[in-house]
Amino acid sequence: MNGLEGVVAAETRLSMVDGQRGELIIAGHRLEELASWHFEEVVQLLWGVASGGRTIPLSRSAVLAGASSLAPTAPLMDALRAGVASLTAADDAEAAPLLLASCPVIVAAAWRRQQGLEPLVSRPDLGFAANYLYLLHGVEPDSERVRGLETYLNTVVDHGLNASTFTARVIASTGSDLISAVTGAIGALKGPLHGGAPGPALDMVFAIGEASRAEESLRRKIESGERLMGFGHRIYKVRDPRADVLAAAAHRLYTRGGDLALYELARAVERTALRLLEEYKPGRGLQTNVEFYTALLLHGVGLPTELFTPTFAISRVAGWIAHCLEQRAEGRLIRPQSVYVGAMP
Amino acid sequence: MNGLEGVVAAETRLSMVDGQRGELIIAGHRLEELASWHFEEVVQLLWGVASGGRTIPLSRSAVLAGASSLAPTAPLMDALRAGVASLTAADDAEAAPLLLASCPVIVAAAWRRQQGLEPLVSRPDLGFAANYLYLLHGVEPDSERVRGLETYLNTVVDHGLNASTFTARVIASTGSDLISAVTGAIGALKGPLHGGAPGPALDMVFAIGEASRAEESLRRKIESGERLMGFGHRIYKVRDPRADVLAAAAHRLYTRGGDLALYELARAVERTALRLLEEYKPGRGLQTNVEFYTALLLHGVGLPTELFTPTFAISRVAGWIAHCLEQRAEGRLIRPQSVYVGAMP
Repeated sequence: MNGLEGVVAAETRLSMVDGQRGELIIAGHRLEELASWHFEEVVQLLWGVASGGRTIPLSRSAVLAGASSLAPTAPLMDALRAGVASLTAADDAEAAPLLLASCPVIVAAAWRRQQGLEPLVSRPDLGFAANYLYLLHGVEPDSERVRGLETYLNTVVDHGLNASTFTARVIASTGSDLISAVTGAIGALKGPLHGGAPGPALDMVFAIGEASRAEESLRRKIESGERLMGFGHRIYKVRDPRADVLAAAAHRLYTRGGDLALYELARAVERTALRLLEEYKPGRGLQTNVEFYTALLLHGVGLPTELFTPTFAISRVAGWIAHCLEQRAEGRLIRPQSVYVGAMP
Repeated sequence: MNGLEGVVAAETRLSMVDGQRGELIIAGHRLEELASWHFEEVVQLLWGVASGGRTIPLSRSAVLAGASSLAPTAPLMDALRAGVASLTAADDAEAAPLLLASCPVIVAAAWRRQQGLEPLVSRPDLGFAANYLYLLHGVEPDSERVRGLETYLNTVVDHGLNASTFTARVIASTGSDLISAVTGAIGALKGPLHGGAPGPALDMVFAIGEASRAEESLRRKIESGERLMGFGHRIYKVRDPRADVLAAAAHRLYTRGGDLALYELARAVERTALRLLEEYKPGRGLQTNVEFYTALLLHGVGLPTELFTPTFAISRVAGWIAHCLEQRAEGRLIRPQSVYVGAMP
């Protein structure tokens, strides 16, 4: 009763997740097609579809928003929540590009403070993805890394009515503003049950270290009842279509970088894991999920593990905003019921 | 489909809203009984019920939390969202009292900045309600005002699965922290469709000015299709039980204050409004709602209109926290579905 499983809470034109066929459609486009776009183009597509074709201009003004007063030791997602919550805007047309532009700035500033480094100022001559890498590292990134990051951003920009997107829609349904809705969604994304924390999958690959040790290590994990990070998904019963897109992007990135060792190791771990999962849990159809190749790709892009979830948020904010615009047009409060099971006077 | 109307999304021991009988039970107690408690006692009751009897110590340490960098002109609810979002805590036991203690401090500081006044520091010798009034006005409030405010806080502390409470539960269901959940709930409470914006009801009473003008003014409003603020409720089909509790508290407060003029005017406006609503919309059973007497009571307590919604939040935060603790124990993600109605490739 408490999970609303199978209950339809929204109609959307933004994305369709077909877990049986392993298909993800984003605003009328197959993920495989849209993955190679510029992220800005994907954002404009989503916002246009959400608002019935009206265009929200995407300014380049990436402000150093809400210089958050959190201690440098605060987790990055807390810093992102605080930074976004302190934004103000007059209306949606101001809030949407402000939110999109502010998230990379806030994340990069908070991460650099953790490293004892001064925050940097956005480079208006760079695209969205390149600017984010610049804000982190202070050097203009090479085009392969930018392409890799952009493919990742496009791949995770929207994914049906997950818990953070649903949170954003509930808040927007009260007529509240985009900043409030996105702040709430960030809070939901933080939760360990939300998914989208790809760090552990990569840690497992590193811990295994070389392909010849994969089988023994994975058998031990499975036999001791441990969950293999990066495999299995609540919705997809076949291969997550995002995994292939990310794997291809990772292959390209590591190939161009001239060192395929980690990529080959990850592939070997994946093959072994899938074989063993079928052996130990036959018929369950456990498949590689988006997190496995997210970790490999983002590592190749040069992002440390603690930036994986914040980088997810930096993309998904565009999807949250689109869902809010769509929900707003609906004009109806989302307000389910509770049943009282407590004491009576 | 999009409103989840009639869908049960949670079982709760925290409150029961019986719209047919006009009854509100809070954690096993009738509102009418619990209204006269100290707010701290109500909070301890809710948190205890939510966490299976475990007690969360309610420290008096009301910190000047998250000195928000918002401009003094920012709306108070934005300042509250930003201030709360910038809190950090190690666990629920730290977060719950921190959130409860911080909200009055943040609201009062933001309001005083708007007035060009310096924020004040909490008085640990005062109770929760008295300290809030002190933080606003800088003088120790008389006991009648404290009693009036405390009755209000008790009356609105929890009310089933409204949109902000549902938001908090969705966020908590991901395993995220209390600060994230409460920040999201504040964002939902801001929305005009959420309800709980009692200012306009009082504005109407003031605009009418004297009892003899009530009938003409209200007839004109109804005939021009205007909604009468303070009447009618989505759930209650009979009199909102909170209205009587607040009316009694307002009567006491204005009586002790020695000036019943505004109270009598409000009563006359209410009588006339109910008679005219039955005349123009027979059988609809439109009743006085909680907002009508909230406005009258909080005005008597000495709060200006712009503090009405933030003061609602200062109480409801205790209910949100209780619902999060209860949801947490459930251990299940709230994750409904969407249906894709957009274009296909």
